[in-house]
Amino acid sequence: MRFGFTAERAQTCARLFAEATCDGVYTHGVARFPRFVAMIRNGCVDVAATPETVSRFGAVERWDGRRGPGNLNALAAMERAMQLSLSHGIGCVSLANTNHWMRGGTYGWQAAEAGHIGICWTNTMPNLPPWGGVDPCIGNNPLVIAVPRAQGPVVLDMAMSQFSYGALERHRQRGEMLPVNGGFDAAGNLTRDPAAIEQSQRPLPTGYWKGSGLAILLDMMAAILSQGNATHQITADPLRETGISQVFIALDPEAFGPAAEAERIADDIVASVHGCRSSKEGARVRYPGENTLKVRAENRRLGLPVDPEVWEQILAM
Amino acid sequence: MRFGFTAERAQTCARLFAEATCDGVYTHGVARFPRFVAMIRNGCVDVAATPETVSRFGAVERWDGRRGPGNLNALAAMERAMQLSLSHGIGCVSLANTNHWMRGGTYGWQAAEAGHIGICWTNTMPNLPPWGGVDPCIGNNPLVIAVPRAQGPVVLDMAMSQFSYGALERHRQRGEMLPVNGGFDAAGNLTRDPAAIEQSQRPLPTGYWKGSGLAILLDMMAAILSQGNATHQITADPLRETGISQVFIALDPEAFGPAAEAERIADDIVASVHGCRSSKEGARVRYPGENTLKVRAENRRLGLPVDPEVWEQILAM
Repeated sequence: MRFGFTAERAQTCARLFAEATCDGVYTHGVARFPRFVAMIRNGCVDVAATPETVSRFGAVERWDGRRGPGNLNALAAMERAMQLSLSHGIGCVSLANTNHWMRGGTYGWQAAEAGHIGICWTNTMPNLPPWGGVDPCIGNNPLVIAVPRAQGPVVLDMAMSQFSYGALERHRQRGEMLPVNGGFDAAGNLTRDPAAIEQSQRPLPTGYWKGSGLAILLDMMAAILSQGNATHQITADPLRETGISQVFIALDPEAFGPAAEAERIADDIVASVHGCRSSKEGARVRYPGENTLKVRAENRRLGLPVDPEVWEQILAM
Repeated sequence: MRFGFTAERAQTCARLFAEATCDGVYTHGVARFPRFVAMIRNGCVDVAATPETVSRFGAVERWDGRRGPGNLNALAAMERAMQLSLSHGIGCVSLANTNHWMRGGTYGWQAAEAGHIGICWTNTMPNLPPWGGVDPCIGNNPLVIAVPRAQGPVVLDMAMSQFSYGALERHRQRGEMLPVNGGFDAAGNLTRDPAAIEQSQRPLPTGYWKGSGLAILLDMMAAILSQGNATHQITADPLRETGISQVFIALDPEAFGPAAEAERIADDIVASVHGCRSSKEGARVRYPGENTLKVRAENRRLGLPVDPEVWEQILAM
């Protein structure tokens, strides 16, 4: 609020940061708040800006995010996509000129908890070499897909890099190798050594050529549908990464068939995943998002873990 | 036609097989025709069945494929999704109870060549162990995304396994290792040895946990939206793999903004990919589908390469 947020928008924005931490996505929760404030200070994020509808046609709308807070813009866009899907079965909102949405899964959970299938993605600054390339020319463009389910939504939140730079850093600090190859070393060989990848700046796209191709298509669709910036137009500086493009698609399962049937189908698939013989004694194969409810309950019970240094920073703002 | 196809449907069906070969997707083109005929003979494919609209609401329709030929069903579903997108900006057709669509890229090219963005996916029989599992409990569920572009559509056609069994076989026959790890050996170690993976029946999901999670979500959405079978309900026998579920989404870029602008955005992204420094001397980073037009032109000029044995089989039918 000291930076000009209205009380209501401050409340929502803060809630989204806290919920990311509560759900165990620590990199994009409270720990990220100081960087968010730095981007308000340097003018990338305009706290007062709300998204504007540039055009609408049937079940689709194109929005200008006007460089408002990325999480508030994204929340509003998914909300509108869900409204559109109630009238049309499916709805799509494209959003140009916005800021980092923080935890992408937020908007998947938002859709699924409201009973919708949600599909959304964002482009990012260039931070990943495409397959066959050495320079970071593509974005890691996170993709989120969420399916509602009474016993726990199924939510996939995946970036197009196999490991984030944050994950590389954590492995290096613990002196651990990555569980699988995560990029190239200086000599151009695949490696599990996080430090070698940080040095070469050549992390791997997930699935090599596959994640690389998917990243290109997600960027292209986001830029075309929002008529906004593509990755190659976004400043490659985490503190200046603004004017990005996003797409939000919601589907109303009830437009396709009875809700009870959808619920049964989702439960049966979850059961089939759980029934798969595990490669580790005593472990169980998990569905995407399965761990979130457990972590959420635990963090609500014990309190949200926040780095004391980060907390001091926030209190001192 | 000898199996009961009308002349027109025989013509279209044959064209789709031939085009897959012409575009260089040899595994799902003419070479696949004998298996297709075997599945007509064993009753999985009903040549006379055309899809039926079970329900419609706004921009979405749910179809029953009635076990008709998978490629004809899919072609009709994407066509309808495009029609819906002309009225609503976006359109979605879900298709239950259908058969293998052969080359998934077909329906991406179909959308893109008509000026639409196309997104479609299919589930499959269980043929891939999920991440953390040893049995093939999930499908490799191909995902297709296509963006129109005058100078050549950008078309991604990716299965959720890193390598198909066909690719493993070809590498083994040539005595070659895979370019990257493709699965586990009998001892549970990641390996590039195709024979070891064929033996363990543990190919890798693309991007490990990421492709595994995406496969689960694609299956779940396909089954829920079509109210059809999920992977765990599909017979794990390539000759009996029927009653599968698919989703077709089309977006009309002109519902979002001027076509010329969309074209410029796509061209600029392609240029940025081409401008990326290559990891191989003299090579260029490619966008998904880039090679297709070249192969297509070459095969049209020189004739379609078909294995003589397969051709004899077809002539003898």
